[in-house]
Amino acid sequence: MKIAIAQLNFHIGNFEGNLQKMLQAVEEAKAKQADLICFSELSTCGYPPRDFLEFDDFIELAEQTIAKLADAAQGIAIVAGSPSRNPVVEGKDLYNSAYFMADGEVKQVQHKALLPTYDIFDEYRYFEPANEFQVVEYKGKRIALTVCEDIWNIGNENPLYTICPLDEMQAQNPDFILNLSASPFSYKQAETRTKIVQTNVKRYGIPMFYVNHAGAQTEIIFDGGSLVASPSGDIFDELPYFKEDVRVYELDAVTKGGQNKLQARNKMQLIHDGLVTGIRDYFGKLGFKKAILGLSGGIDSAVTAVLACRALGPENVHALLLPSQFSSDHSVDDARQLAENLGMTYDIIAIKNIYDSFMGELGPHFEGLPFNIAEENIQARSRGVLLMAYSNKFGNILLNTSNKSEMAVGYGTLYGDMCGGLSVIGDVYKTEVFELARYMNKDGEVVPENTITKPPSAELRPNQKDSDSLPDYDILDEILFHYIEKREGPQDIIEMGYDEKLVRRILRLVNINEFKRHQTAPVLRISPKAFGMGRRMPIVGKYLA
Amino acid sequence: MKIAIAQLNFHIGNFEGNLQKMLQAVEEAKAKQADLICFSELSTCGYPPRDFLEFDDFIELAEQTIAKLADAAQGIAIVAGSPSRNPVVEGKDLYNSAYFMADGEVKQVQHKALLPTYDIFDEYRYFEPANEFQVVEYKGKRIALTVCEDIWNIGNENPLYTICPLDEMQAQNPDFILNLSASPFSYKQAETRTKIVQTNVKRYGIPMFYVNHAGAQTEIIFDGGSLVASPSGDIFDELPYFKEDVRVYELDAVTKGGQNKLQARNKMQLIHDGLVTGIRDYFGKLGFKKAILGLSGGIDSAVTAVLACRALGPENVHALLLPSQFSSDHSVDDARQLAENLGMTYDIIAIKNIYDSFMGELGPHFEGLPFNIAEENIQARSRGVLLMAYSNKFGNILLNTSNKSEMAVGYGTLYGDMCGGLSVIGDVYKTEVFELARYMNKDGEVVPENTITKPPSAELRPNQKDSDSLPDYDILDEILFHYIEKREGPQDIIEMGYDEKLVRRILRLVNINEFKRHQTAPVLRISPKAFGMGRRMPIVGKYLA
Repeated sequence: MKIAIAQLNFHIGNFEGNLQKMLQAVEEAKAKQADLICFSELSTCGYPPRDFLEFDDFIELAEQTIAKLADAAQGIAIVAGSPSRNPVVEGKDLYNSAYFMADGEVKQVQHKALLPTYDIFDEYRYFEPANEFQVVEYKGKRIALTVCEDIWNIGNENPLYTICPLDEMQAQNPDFILNLSASPFSYKQAETRTKIVQTNVKRYGIPMFYVNHAGAQTEIIFDGGSLVASPSGDIFDELPYFKEDVRVYELDAVTKGGQNKLQARNKMQLIHDGLVTGIRDYFGKLGFKKAILGLSGGIDSAVTAVLACRALGPENVHALLLPSQFSSDHSVDDARQLAENLGMTYDIIAIKNIYDSFMGELGPHFEGLPFNIAEENIQARSRGVLLMAYSNKFGNILLNTSNKSEMAVGYGTLYGDMCGGLSVIGDVYKTEVFELARYMNKDGEVVPENTITKPPSAELRPNQKDSDSLPDYDILDEILFHYIEKREGPQDIIEMGYDEKLVRRILRLVNINEFKRHQTAPVLRISPKAFGMGRRMPIVGKYLA
Repeated sequence: MKIAIAQLNFHIGNFEGNLQKMLQAVEEAKAKQADLICFSELSTCGYPPRDFLEFDDFIELAEQTIAKLADAAQGIAIVAGSPSRNPVVEGKDLYNSAYFMADGEVKQVQHKALLPTYDIFDEYRYFEPANEFQVVEYKGKRIALTVCEDIWNIGNENPLYTICPLDEMQAQNPDFILNLSASPFSYKQAETRTKIVQTNVKRYGIPMFYVNHAGAQTEIIFDGGSLVASPSGDIFDELPYFKEDVRVYELDAVTKGGQNKLQARNKMQLIHDGLVTGIRDYFGKLGFKKAILGLSGGIDSAVTAVLACRALGPENVHALLLPSQFSSDHSVDDARQLAENLGMTYDIIAIKNIYDSFMGELGPHFEGLPFNIAEENIQARSRGVLLMAYSNKFGNILLNTSNKSEMAVGYGTLYGDMCGGLSVIGDVYKTEVFELARYMNKDGEVVPENTITKPPSAELRPNQKDSDSLPDYDILDEILFHYIEKREGPQDIIEMGYDEKLVRRILRLVNINEFKRHQTAPVLRISPKAFGMGRRMPIVGKYLA
């Protein structure tokens, strides 16, 4: 038996586009004599459809898409993911299902049993869990159909769940496992996913074809890396990261094994390629081509610019250099050097006149009060207005350049440097931004050396340095990592040896700045715990605040 | 037996503050010879604690609070809500529990069984549902302890759930029901809640003491309105809306019934009082006193200003009047009249010089291109910068004045009039804003008559009117209501008789403006479906877009 797996980039709610993509892959698989083709989770409607699922009309469109796929299942079996209606009144209205289609009709539907409801996942908001498990019989083989999380409770050892779908199907002697996934990227995910697939195939002694989504949906990036695993635990094949691909395998060869094709995994390369994918698909799926961003001469905007140029092409990225009276000479030089390295266009607009005009109007009202954050923020916000004016005039999406460390502690100006339609590096700690810059320069200077080596500064008052008000980023990022990624409390972190006052101050800064992050652009997620939909915090909370 | 119910305003994560509030109520109840006092859901930590629940340290603080309450349960029983740990490895780590404390110790813990996971609720993200139900025996009475949603599946008729906790306890012959709630306000909620409580008491033939939270937590307002219901269905008492109160009842008298004390319910009064509560608690719980807002002379900012003055006192609300060259004469007059009616201070800053200064810098880059949304938005954003400068200089929180209709269709400038720490009327449709203004004027003019009667305009270009680009608000709001509140699809709405092109255009506007709403301040929720955490939509979604 020949099995095709299609690792595609679907678009939420774009039923017609998704259908055409699938039909094309079906033709390709048929041309290669495949007996069956498998797509990823919720392939008809895209993942995650979120509250679109509450619209009856949306579910109907998914059903129509399935009907058209069933029509196309002639001479080949098609396995696709789609929401299906729960015929029972009690419980949620929908299932997250895998449809098995052959001979022009839907032959069988297997629902997802394990519904992730943590971090970025809200599946229990929409779906009822499966409680029946039936293998599919096709051309003399018995196929265990599973959807994403279903294979993540191996032998019931995952404390989140009380059922293991493959254990349930075991008595029916399946010959191989199909898994339809939409498993979000983080820099650790390929490694974790591989282990989970290997443990499964070894436990059940049968091969698995694990089909993942490749591409981004707003903030959530899917890295692809679909896996074909032999019963021995060998990775017979791994599909590329972040790219679409359709490949066909001979079941017997996979069952036999003896081939290991894991790709090399480098954290910075994964983050880099993931962010490029995130930008590309945000623009592509919204129907935009052109980006704009502000270049300060600092490392955050430099790294963001490189990613944007690689995602959209330098001809589609325009930069504004917006120096103030507090900008150092090197700021404009470094930014100009970067733009020239990248081959992108830029304009320089000094903000002094605009700042003066604001202060001219505000002066009488602020009389006698010292220069403070109000004046600092006017500079950042004037830049925001200029960037947005370009965005509105020329139809470019403004890219936000804030990093995770400053978003965490609120070191940024709301409606100023926090403007933007997409936060590109908001899940990348400052220390990782430096690593990323070094990675970008591995084959020659792209990010100017001076941008990497000079001390970080917001340049909003004379001789300002980040280190005036923040600890060294090495320390800051470690503490943030324990609090954000590891969800450790103040006592735990202090016991690791960090200064108590510093720990309490940083955790307090994180919590009292929730109001700023609430109004931020979606943040491309590259870590296991990003700001945004995966981290839901009360704004008026008094905890550690 | 005498039963006290304490309808209090807790603060998320403020364990010490919540404890002191509860201890004071315990003293008050003891002074009135109460045998038992009951608090609302998750009273130790405040509701909803959201991802704070993922911190072990946070759960420990809740446990310490329960220990102190147990110490205080001398001569009185205390029933309080708090998270408790699930001792079983499988399933979620926590329960949402009601603690029954007496004689200085925790006597019994009843977990919540029905975990709302829809709209603003994410309970299945954190909690394991109860599957055991045991009445509490105390002073010869058997008490059925329930937590909020537990009483909302009467006789298993709610399609969301498969278990009815009170049916389960029925065999143990309870004498009365205690319900610990944190049931969010909408203008329909008091009515719905009353019906649910009445249906329960009639079904089981025993009284119920329903204790709700009163006060707001960021965007979610809780209206109190706790209920004491007799087995006959009589509402023996209803506590006030939006206010703290502690009352004591003789169980025998409640069982006997024959008293009906429902408060009058007026939609505009409920919305008005709810929004005042929302503002007051947002400021109070964040430790702020003073607000600032821009007054345009239009109805949205006028209504917001009235609400702010009533919540914080006019001495704590400052206004900026920020006319541009496109502002009509009446704009400043109407705004000034409003400020004088309210007794609030204001400054007038014309934005022309600032606008000119932006255009002076941008002019060379925009040469030959027509005036468009870019120039319109520069005006709105210049106002945003001025308002935020005041906010930063004087420590005022900026109030956002966008209404639900314009937030829905994206008729607002991101980082301009969409600025602000809290969206006051973002869940109030434009037609309702007019009703609210009329309600405010019921005892004499507060909102100037001209503000109510003149045609709405953003005044960002000469002679602009909202009706140039939007349909009449009567029609717009109806279509929006069907799509947003009712979640009806385009076909359903068109079949009601609305113009097809108009319906499709409006639904498309709602969907393509998700990116703007993503960056909005939290919106005080007064309807059953507000923008924000209760409505989760993909930004890159292609559905109806």
